Amino acid sequence: MAGAAGSAQTLADLGEWELLRRLSRFAPPGQFADDAALLSDQAGRPLVLNTDVLVEHVHFSDATMPPQAVGWRAAAANLSDLAAMGCSAVAGITVGLVAPGHTPWAWVEGVYEGLAEALQEHGGLLLGGDCSSGQQRMLAITALGYLEPAPGSGAIRRGDGRPGDWLISTGPHGLSRLGLALLLGELHSDQRSQLSTALQQRAIAAHQRPQPRLDAVAALRRSRPVPLPWRVGGTDSSDGLVAAVAAIAAASDCGAVLQRAALPLDPELARLEAGEHWCLSGGEDFELILALEAPWAEALLQALPGASPIGCLVEAQPGLVCWQDSGAPLAAVESGFSHFR
Amino acid sequence: MAGAAGSAQTLADLGEWELLRRLSRFAPPGQFADDAALLSDQAGRPLVLNTDVLVEHVHFSDATMPPQAVGWRAAAANLSDLAAMGCSAVAGITVGLVAPGHTPWAWVEGVYEGLAEALQEHGGLLLGGDCSSGQQRMLAITALGYLEPAPGSGAIRRGDGRPGDWLISTGPHGLSRLGLALLLGELHSDQRSQLSTALQQRAIAAHQRPQPRLDAVAALRRSRPVPLPWRVGGTDSSDGLVAAVAAIAAASDCGAVLQRAALPLDPELARLEAGEHWCLSGGEDFELILALEAPWAEALLQALPGASPIGCLVEAQPGLVCWQDSGAPLAAVESGFSHFR
Repeated sequence: MAGAAGSAQTLADLGEWELLRRLSRFAPPGQFADDAALLSDQAGRPLVLNTDVLVEHVHFSDATMPPQAVGWRAAAANLSDLAAMGCSAVAGITVGLVAPGHTPWAWVEGVYEGLAEALQEHGGLLLGGDCSSGQQRMLAITALGYLEPAPGSGAIRRGDGRPGDWLISTGPHGLSRLGLALLLGELHSDQRSQLSTALQQRAIAAHQRPQPRLDAVAALRRSRPVPLPWRVGGTDSSDGLVAAVAAIAAASDCGAVLQRAALPLDPELARLEAGEHWCLSGGEDFELILALEAPWAEALLQALPGASPIGCLVEAQPGLVCWQDSGAPLAAVESGFSHFR
Repeated sequence: MAGAAGSAQTLADLGEWELLRRLSRFAPPGQFADDAALLSDQAGRPLVLNTDVLVEHVHFSDATMPPQAVGWRAAAANLSDLAAMGCSAVAGITVGLVAPGHTPWAWVEGVYEGLAEALQEHGGLLLGGDCSSGQQRMLAITALGYLEPAPGSGAIRRGDGRPGDWLISTGPHGLSRLGLALLLGELHSDQRSQLSTALQQRAIAAHQRPQPRLDAVAALRRSRPVPLPWRVGGTDSSDGLVAAVAAIAAASDCGAVLQRAALPLDPELARLEAGEHWCLSGGEDFELILALEAPWAEALLQALPGASPIGCLVEAQPGLVCWQDSGAPLAAVESGFSHFR
């Protein structure tokens, strides 16, 4: 983003992407390029480590979420980053908790109940943590996971896509944003009346109880056609579907095209004016977007119900995402959230 | 601490110790008993993972620390917890940064410079992280380290002390608190005049640039008398010398006695009225307090200049710390900070 010149620059001037770019120079080259950190233990076995911070009024609020949902989402978002790196086993998480002294114990207990439920369902233990008072409620979660050995690295990297790869979405998009709209009362009654109760419930669940797609990683491993080496481009769609596709394309030094008719968009949601936009950019669906050679993509679609092809990577300006039919540009790589603005 | 009864309990009612006790039920039994989490990777090799949160006005402030010192201390405190578990190799850290949008980039840059300097000196890489806006500056640091194989676990555990063990301090105590007092202008000019410039500089350095004692862990490993199995009780003194001794004693199901004449207290600092109190309870010296069988303790004292014997573990009420000569009680286990009050 543009960024103000001069020595008195603030974080709001920079925006999140420029801030992360500047911070990346304190890390080894490429270390910040993926959803989580890939490292090796002393025996050379791959580990994945990821930290997320969640701040009240930025990432959660009492208005839209009971504490159990805050905890569940915090763990799920972090485990989703492990899945986006190709982890199929979760060691556990540590939790840094900051809250004002007047915070009810019942709220904290609810958050940890939600964390524990997510770990129970997806694997891993509460390993440790720290707590402190502070003006604002905040959670910092770090997750540690393991990669299974595979021919090649066994990791999913944003930069491992190639022109010609199919782009696969592991599930629908836009439901989490619809759930948020329902919880915030953003929809008029005539808009709500177009949506079935079942879809409304699914949308609220998608927002409050997202599922990290560790199961999709397992399906990916199972479905690899034997002659193919391990090479999987990918990321999760926490920042939105188009942002995920643009991130893969940019890191893989190519462009991407999406088929409008193949968007992973619920037909009911498509009736809302905002439906397609929420599918493309609503964010926080926590699905995986994967770039695979055609035979592996076809095998994965067989192995993973709910997954669908959405487009492909193409030789084009790195990070540029266009509609396949019209060629109209959808996004360049800098899409996504900027929490500092 | 006492804690208010009833359903409307707040975190301030509970205090930090009771809060951690309640949170520990979401983790495996004993998981919260040490300075950091001990776990095994998929090959059974031990890893250590630790998370600390640091909040402005609770753990740091512009009044006492430039941003480079904030970053150095944040990394050092975390690496100290790895040392307290027996780590001799640091894989690296992740950093969760929360700050208001009006925060100057120069402050963030300084913090990361300090983090990078500490990693350069003590090993490990900046592995990853996350950032978000928030009302208050906050850092959540997670460090990952490795234990070297040793006969037995190779870990330092709070609960591995035994009555009869010598208690060893790896260095002086009270200097960090003196440094804070100097930075805050807490001392009268006649008090300051009793202190040499050299000591004042050492004290400010102890507060702003504490050294995690990974070197002491290496000396500990080198000095083990061959016939002795690996058994080391210990913790770091981040919460104060007496709190560290009480924590080891309580976890080891015994008491401890300290020799007043053997306190690791600088003779100049001893001239100040508050000197002994700061040595015992000032906190944030980040030395290691170790409980060892006499032959190993004597060998460590030879191998590690600056280390000194301060007392021993005894059969007594678990967690009770007394003066050796008078028998007067110094503390029970609940000493230490309570950030929520």
